[in-house]
Amino acid sequence: MNEAAYIDWIGVDWGTTNLRAWAMRGSEVVATAAASIGMASLTRDGFEPALLNVIEKWLAASRMTPLPVIACGMVGARQGWQEAPYVAVPCAPLVRDAMIPATCKDSRITVTIIHGLSQANPADVMRGEETQIAGLLAMDPDFEGLACLPGTHNKWAFIRGGEIERFRTFMTGELFDIIARQSVLRHALGDASAFDDEAFDAAVLQAAADPAALSAALFSIRAASLLDGIAPDVARARLSGLLIGLEIAALGDEVRTARPAIVGSHTLSSLYERAIRLNGGDAQRLDGDGLARAGLQMAHDLMIVEKTN
Amino acid sequence: MNEAAYIDWIGVDWGTTNLRAWAMRGSEVVATAAASIGMASLTRDGFEPALLNVIEKWLAASRMTPLPVIACGMVGARQGWQEAPYVAVPCAPLVRDAMIPATCKDSRITVTIIHGLSQANPADVMRGEETQIAGLLAMDPDFEGLACLPGTHNKWAFIRGGEIERFRTFMTGELFDIIARQSVLRHALGDASAFDDEAFDAAVLQAAADPAALSAALFSIRAASLLDGIAPDVARARLSGLLIGLEIAALGDEVRTARPAIVGSHTLSSLYERAIRLNGGDAQRLDGDGLARAGLQMAHDLMIVEKTN
Repeated sequence: MNEAAYIDWIGVDWGTTNLRAWAMRGSEVVATAAASIGMASLTRDGFEPALLNVIEKWLAASRMTPLPVIACGMVGARQGWQEAPYVAVPCAPLVRDAMIPATCKDSRITVTIIHGLSQANPADVMRGEETQIAGLLAMDPDFEGLACLPGTHNKWAFIRGGEIERFRTFMTGELFDIIARQSVLRHALGDASAFDDEAFDAAVLQAAADPAALSAALFSIRAASLLDGIAPDVARARLSGLLIGLEIAALGDEVRTARPAIVGSHTLSSLYERAIRLNGGDAQRLDGDGLARAGLQMAHDLMIVEKTN
Repeated sequence: MNEAAYIDWIGVDWGTTNLRAWAMRGSEVVATAAASIGMASLTRDGFEPALLNVIEKWLAASRMTPLPVIACGMVGARQGWQEAPYVAVPCAPLVRDAMIPATCKDSRITVTIIHGLSQANPADVMRGEETQIAGLLAMDPDFEGLACLPGTHNKWAFIRGGEIERFRTFMTGELFDIIARQSVLRHALGDASAFDDEAFDAAVLQAAADPAALSAALFSIRAASLLDGIAPDVARARLSGLLIGLEIAALGDEVRTARPAIVGSHTLSSLYERAIRLNGGDAQRLDGDGLARAGLQMAHDLMIVEKTN
């Protein structure tokens, strides 16, 4: 951090396994930090020390006493620092009144945790992605349509008039992970991280043509490894294609007509885009990197408006 | 074992995690034994000592030198005692020429390992179930149609004229296990072993109506647990119903018209029967307990014919 720099708030994206933090002056990023520590590895009392461990170095540059810290993600889950409520859709991605203060011993900071979103039927929840979607709307206030946020629990949000109308979570990423690591397919996939595009494409189409046969198609990857010695990168691509293909098939016409915006890491986003095109649709790709930060900015601005009213 | 009893062969059903053994005089069971030791926990050199540990007590009663031991299952896999070949379907469930002798240091026994079955397209394999199907045909030589053998890797075999024409493996049981234990759904399922029939039925129909939406339907179980506090036995039944329902939906008309024979444990078989009926089909239940033994008997008889020819 520049010696002359000062900061007036900190934004934190705090998920199940990772934390990212931004030291901010207004809307300018002064410094960033990251740590591999998340909700899954912390007890309730461990959140404040873990946060201070990351941001302590910035506190001398604070021009605010106390310095506001705004956090989104699983930090607000029942197993998190403090449970923040769910706001039921349809609603704007960020709702000031549903953000909660977290109990904090250190008087140099105040911590606000952003709420999650819920949907009654079909039952669904999100925590963290609402802030990314707020960031998407901050960058493109007129955005309407379908946004896809690939991840462990992949979210599809239907956005209109600045609100999230409804959303669907597919646990495709988690299924891939546990099948690849824990099931009999681990022998076929090996440790290869390489990827066979052709095998992926065939599997996407196979899933769309016969979605109910998933668990037979999965076992067939193991059998093909035993009988035909298919390479680990082919096996990995087939598993990925079956699972992502199934998800795209479930969205059906919605994904074909909507030209969804895919927001996420390059690798995963490109697989989703590929699967959408194979199903006769089209997609745009948005850089996901800045979205959480932009959403935290929006939450900060909401709170400032609150204070000055 | 009766003091006066003697034995002339031993049959062994030896899978990934368990071993069951029968001490036999002709077709009469003289004694049985079981051990929680299987392919997954043994190195190549460990199979013979593990077997002797179970059958040693019977060897004094042997009237044969050496005493024939016939084994089926994952003991013949690549990671097993010795790799037995796959026989490609269509074929009879047991093929004498594809059974192999296992290397054995103890001169009191000879060990024969039964082959597996394979299918080229779609790629599929079985090891152990071919012996159960041989047992089914031994008990009912005129059996034709569809046999379902529920388990970790559930097999559906299409049987005609004493042969297995083709088969399909669904890794439904393994998916249930890893999702229930390793995924985010573990929080919703808890340790409950109770089961809600109504939730199971609804999930079977849900999977049939929208098979592609599996990974969204799975996540919705977690969300319903968070939002509505659904009970663990409801969550468990929904997971089971979605996965079994998907499998039955994949079989489609074949399962509706065939009145399949379900061969397996009471609990799992009754869930499959229930799901088949919900999909407009019908099923018969056969007691699976004696089938492996009956199949091993058939393998033994095949070898005796071989010797006396």
